[in-house]
Amino acid sequence: MTAAFSDMDAVRTLLAEQPSVHETAVAAAAARNGQLTKPPGALGRLEDIAIWYAGWRGVERPTVERPQIIVFAGNHGVAAQGVSAFPAEVTAQMVANFQHGGAAINQLAKTFGAKLDVHALSLEVPTADFTQDAAMSEVEVIEALSVGWSAVDAEADVLVVGEMGIGNTTSAAALAMALLGGAAGDWAGRGTGVDDAGLEIKTRVVNEGVTLHAGHGDGLEMLRRLGGRELAGMAGAIMRARHLRIPVLLDGFICTAAALTLEKTRAGALDHCTASHLSAESAHGRLLDALGKTPLMALDLRLGEGSGAALSLGVLKGAVACLSGMATFAEAGVSDA
Amino acid sequence: MTAAFSDMDAVRTLLAEQPSVHETAVAAAAARNGQLTKPPGALGRLEDIAIWYAGWRGVERPTVERPQIIVFAGNHGVAAQGVSAFPAEVTAQMVANFQHGGAAINQLAKTFGAKLDVHALSLEVPTADFTQDAAMSEVEVIEALSVGWSAVDAEADVLVVGEMGIGNTTSAAALAMALLGGAAGDWAGRGTGVDDAGLEIKTRVVNEGVTLHAGHGDGLEMLRRLGGRELAGMAGAIMRARHLRIPVLLDGFICTAAALTLEKTRAGALDHCTASHLSAESAHGRLLDALGKTPLMALDLRLGEGSGAALSLGVLKGAVACLSGMATFAEAGVSDA
Repeated sequence: MTAAFSDMDAVRTLLAEQPSVHETAVAAAAARNGQLTKPPGALGRLEDIAIWYAGWRGVERPTVERPQIIVFAGNHGVAAQGVSAFPAEVTAQMVANFQHGGAAINQLAKTFGAKLDVHALSLEVPTADFTQDAAMSEVEVIEALSVGWSAVDAEADVLVVGEMGIGNTTSAAALAMALLGGAAGDWAGRGTGVDDAGLEIKTRVVNEGVTLHAGHGDGLEMLRRLGGRELAGMAGAIMRARHLRIPVLLDGFICTAAALTLEKTRAGALDHCTASHLSAESAHGRLLDALGKTPLMALDLRLGEGSGAALSLGVLKGAVACLSGMATFAEAGVSDA
Repeated sequence: MTAAFSDMDAVRTLLAEQPSVHETAVAAAAARNGQLTKPPGALGRLEDIAIWYAGWRGVERPTVERPQIIVFAGNHGVAAQGVSAFPAEVTAQMVANFQHGGAAINQLAKTFGAKLDVHALSLEVPTADFTQDAAMSEVEVIEALSVGWSAVDAEADVLVVGEMGIGNTTSAAALAMALLGGAAGDWAGRGTGVDDAGLEIKTRVVNEGVTLHAGHGDGLEMLRRLGGRELAGMAGAIMRARHLRIPVLLDGFICTAAALTLEKTRAGALDHCTASHLSAESAHGRLLDALGKTPLMALDLRLGEGSGAALSLGVLKGAVACLSGMATFAEAGVSDA
């Protein structure tokens, strides 16, 4: 395919030129919200996310009718070090499962009326082991960002990005440590369910990778050095959504780490993103705190695939339906407080 | 209408004879869950609620296709004391709003494909002021319980009960204090947004009511003395759902207080109920703790109408879709850990 951008500086330029929220729509939606037949604030966070959504869609009474979920898959050189409870071939096997409709994300997409697209990114060529070298060349990361950029449906009205990639919580932990500091043990967690010995290896691998690469560039450069193709795919899709004013629901630890690389390249790059859930992966809360994002739910999910964000489509749909569909006090003839 | 039960002892007998969960279905669903294409436990609480739901529906692979939401409305004698931020006529005005499709619960019912029924219970006859007398006579509480019992659709596969009734957080607080102890200030909260002076009145009213009535009977008797028609309607519907093996999603503070009266009449009466959300009403968490129920969400809702439980229909649908629709490792040819 033709890359959507020629080099990493072109990506940085796109991040610098990204559109901002439609303030008039925010004000109109907030004013409408204040007149609806309920005590002020009684819908809690539903009110906040409905107004946020209205602002990005640029209308006072938006709808959620075309959710898109994109799952990116990639393989990781560091998987060979034994950082996961599952063998690397599971990445490709799960892609087949997505394609045949058998995974969790397939059921959630169906439940919430979302279109599901799956992009397997060069699974036969794992990224380099980042304890030895940069995970990707510039050509490779641009290609993966570009797949993500092009994968977003311009007609979608909300986007969920998810991932599959054995070893990718190790990559996410390394990105978080490189960009936010702290110790490897703060960021390395159990992932798919690694045992104590595996967690020890994982922590060492994260530490070695960060020691080799941290400080050698911005968020995008860290994405290239410590990330993976599926993380770059998610980052590219999140960027494209911003340019299309499509609000994004962030998923768990790996998705949030991919998003972090954008924020650390350009502050404000995630203003069109809401955190959907707090994962059971131990460092996710710390990562969300660093981004100033409060998750909508905390159900101990730790699956990835975009599953937590897909689940929160229900909350978003409900919130937006209330903002756009409720009667005002005047319309309903209800006495105000 | 003809009452579903002749007297309160008949209600107690129904509570004593209620069916229990289908253990074979629980075991089958749990076994299936363990074979699905995900790391063990990676769907967190979704796995728990899907298995709970399967157990009550009595099948290994259930579906959620016919949710029913019932909103009960009633008026309260204590409202005349100034315990609410809204005037009492708002109860009837909001019932009209439900009937015309303008309230939050209408939008949420539509979003999650639920049937919505509204029962206004003798709005023109408020309950007695419980600081002076029992809120309801035995005939009145039996009538309201009976409306609730009969309102449940036997073909529904999940039930949400909600309420509308100016003054009913005062009633709920009094029930909680009478049945769980503590001080009036522990249970009286801001409700629809009462100011400091109103909260002071509310706390005094709760204290006076509990002083007059507590210790004079079981949960059902307290429901009669301190409750309201819409609380009794919810209790009757929750009981009927149990007899039909229809799982219930509990809503906020008032719904949970109504449910508490059943649990305090017969331990285990709420085994078919899951707490949907933690309300912003200050004492809801304490009430859920007393029932040993952990809410699925915490979004600072404090609206009532069944809104939080309706919102959690999305979570339930997603959870059940995963249990029933996902492929197993063997079916998908995915390597296990």
